[in-house]
Amino acid sequence: MSAAPVLPPDPAHDLDWMARALDLARGAVGLSDPNPRVGCVIVGADGSVLGRGHTQQAGGPHAEVMALRDAQARGTSVAGATAYVTLEPCSHHGRTPPCCDALIAARIGRVVAALQDPNPQVAGRGLARLRAAGIDTRLLPPDSTPARGARELNIGFLSRMVRGLPWVRLKIAASLDGRTALPDGQSQWITGEAARADGHAWRARAAALLTGAGTVLDDDPRLDVRGTPVARQPVLVVVDSRLQTPPTARLFDAERPVWFYAAVEAAAADALKARGAHITRRPDARGKVDLAAVMADLARREINELHVEAGHKLAGSLLREGLVDELLVYLAPKLIGEGLAMFHRPTQPSPLAALADAPAFAFHSVETIGEDLRILARPRGRDLF
Amino acid sequence: MSAAPVLPPDPAHDLDWMARALDLARGAVGLSDPNPRVGCVIVGADGSVLGRGHTQQAGGPHAEVMALRDAQARGTSVAGATAYVTLEPCSHHGRTPPCCDALIAARIGRVVAALQDPNPQVAGRGLARLRAAGIDTRLLPPDSTPARGARELNIGFLSRMVRGLPWVRLKIAASLDGRTALPDGQSQWITGEAARADGHAWRARAAALLTGAGTVLDDDPRLDVRGTPVARQPVLVVVDSRLQTPPTARLFDAERPVWFYAAVEAAAADALKARGAHITRRPDARGKVDLAAVMADLARREINELHVEAGHKLAGSLLREGLVDELLVYLAPKLIGEGLAMFHRPTQPSPLAALADAPAFAFHSVETIGEDLRILARPRGRDLF
Repeated sequence: MSAAPVLPPDPAHDLDWMARALDLARGAVGLSDPNPRVGCVIVGADGSVLGRGHTQQAGGPHAEVMALRDAQARGTSVAGATAYVTLEPCSHHGRTPPCCDALIAARIGRVVAALQDPNPQVAGRGLARLRAAGIDTRLLPPDSTPARGARELNIGFLSRMVRGLPWVRLKIAASLDGRTALPDGQSQWITGEAARADGHAWRARAAALLTGAGTVLDDDPRLDVRGTPVARQPVLVVVDSRLQTPPTARLFDAERPVWFYAAVEAAAADALKARGAHITRRPDARGKVDLAAVMADLARREINELHVEAGHKLAGSLLREGLVDELLVYLAPKLIGEGLAMFHRPTQPSPLAALADAPAFAFHSVETIGEDLRILARPRGRDLF
Repeated sequence: MSAAPVLPPDPAHDLDWMARALDLARGAVGLSDPNPRVGCVIVGADGSVLGRGHTQQAGGPHAEVMALRDAQARGTSVAGATAYVTLEPCSHHGRTPPCCDALIAARIGRVVAALQDPNPQVAGRGLARLRAAGIDTRLLPPDSTPARGARELNIGFLSRMVRGLPWVRLKIAASLDGRTALPDGQSQWITGEAARADGHAWRARAAALLTGAGTVLDDDPRLDVRGTPVARQPVLVVVDSRLQTPPTARLFDAERPVWFYAAVEAAAADALKARGAHITRRPDARGKVDLAAVMADLARREINELHVEAGHKLAGSLLREGLVDELLVYLAPKLIGEGLAMFHRPTQPSPLAALADAPAFAFHSVETIGEDLRILARPRGRDLF
């Protein structure tokens, strides 16, 4: 392995250094929720790394403070050094004191940020405060590779800040001919082991998993993260209009909050509460769960990324209501023929009157995972945070 | 543009030179059928290119002779030079004299071939004949990149030689949720312009296109190659058990042979023959066209690659009978929901009793074409020529 070249922290090398800060930020996945995933690297004038860090769990230190502490622990002064941070340092007192103050106190000479604070109320204030303290600042161009990377890593946080909604990722596994199960519902396993492990990694990065009562009744899944170490299991959200989930369901076996959304008051509620379930009523006019209201509620509860694994009916409803931000499709290289369709009535109207009315997505990425394909697709124009 | 480095034609550079011969071979696509697509480059000891060529139309010169003539036209002697040929030079009198004799007469010093002649009756005889004439010969390892490339380029020729069957490529365009049309059959256009142009390039490389009477009656397509220049239009093959195709069908508008396969004698035959159709009866026991017999017949008629564009019933039948060697799937980033499935009963039995019985393919390549995805998948283990 060759050593990384020593690059001075000047504008010519800002993208390279920010890429390293972004690598650090990935360490915050599954840890920092509901806070953003931020990385920070502090670089001396000679191109030496003085400190590194990423955001810790909520209430814990942010990336900048972790990097400053790292430098301190090494007995190194950061006076005059450059701090690369993947998100504009905060200037307000939240659960922790403002990072701007810590950077100023440490006499950092220059701060480069990949993204502005997405909160329109505070965007730019962090950098302004640093400038007021005599610190040179730079915000990278939004189209630069690390800026894009930082947005992707925080797509859920950005979605919640900008739209008041979580980023909703709908996962589905299907055969090449678009079937998710045999006619009798048999669906284990359509995809291979590598794709299933990859699916658990996507579960792990979400703050919450969402499923429907149909899936619970049909498959009795645990719906937790397995095979990959996690600091916490994602919250489980169950859309269950009539509270049909039995209190013996295996989903209660995992240690994590379980939130039900129901449309009715039901006697079954007490038994579910006894298993630790938190139940909220959000009925719509038709006596079903109001899915849009659920999403807004999940954002209020600080869910950034929501990972959906649902049957074709609930998946179809989410799509029909425009609530899906991303399709995570695993396509297996096999044919099933007669079987279940991927989504039940995902379009409005259903059936479509004309092909031009079909909901338009764009392929965001396509990769081979083991023997299967993994396709990420987003509604056209939906990736603009 | 930088000039290509001058490489001596020695074993260390055989793969590089063969890659250039393979590039030449691509010029034979749409021209040399039913002969293989072969390229030849003749290289002097100093690494200079003395001659280049690829196979011409059937009855015309092969790649080696074209390259020798090219050198001759430049007034260059090829004595002692190395000839890179993507297929073992022929040693028998076919429509043209043996290429081996031409290479020997020109006093070529060394011959490198990417593939053996696939005909088991003659494999190796060409190289043996050259060796007997004192010429140094080398056959590249079958796993080398140019050997693989030469096999891919000639997959239809190899299939016909080795199996007595054409290479059957089934093209289909579908939405991400696996629908090929709205419930009313509306399917224009699911994919974008780039994918449609790409589809025409695949039509152009096939010796014949195959469709069914259902598609003819529903859509009245021309089913010819448009938007890309071709030396000849592929033969059109129509599977039409009861000869329901009207003699006014637009498929007769293109200049090319049209071959019908029927199950019955029908009065309609005369009107179709008057439009130039060639009609063959191949009934199976159930009074439908015997599709396996059609494939064998097409190989006898020297069809190397067969490009299928059919409705979901005929496509399903071909899959069910194991007659499809490659799926060429264009996936559009849109959802259709209620609509036609990709294939009608592609599995045996239908429905499947267990997921493990699903016909297993392997993804051969996946590429973005404009806004769409192009997926090539082959039955597992089917790409072993």
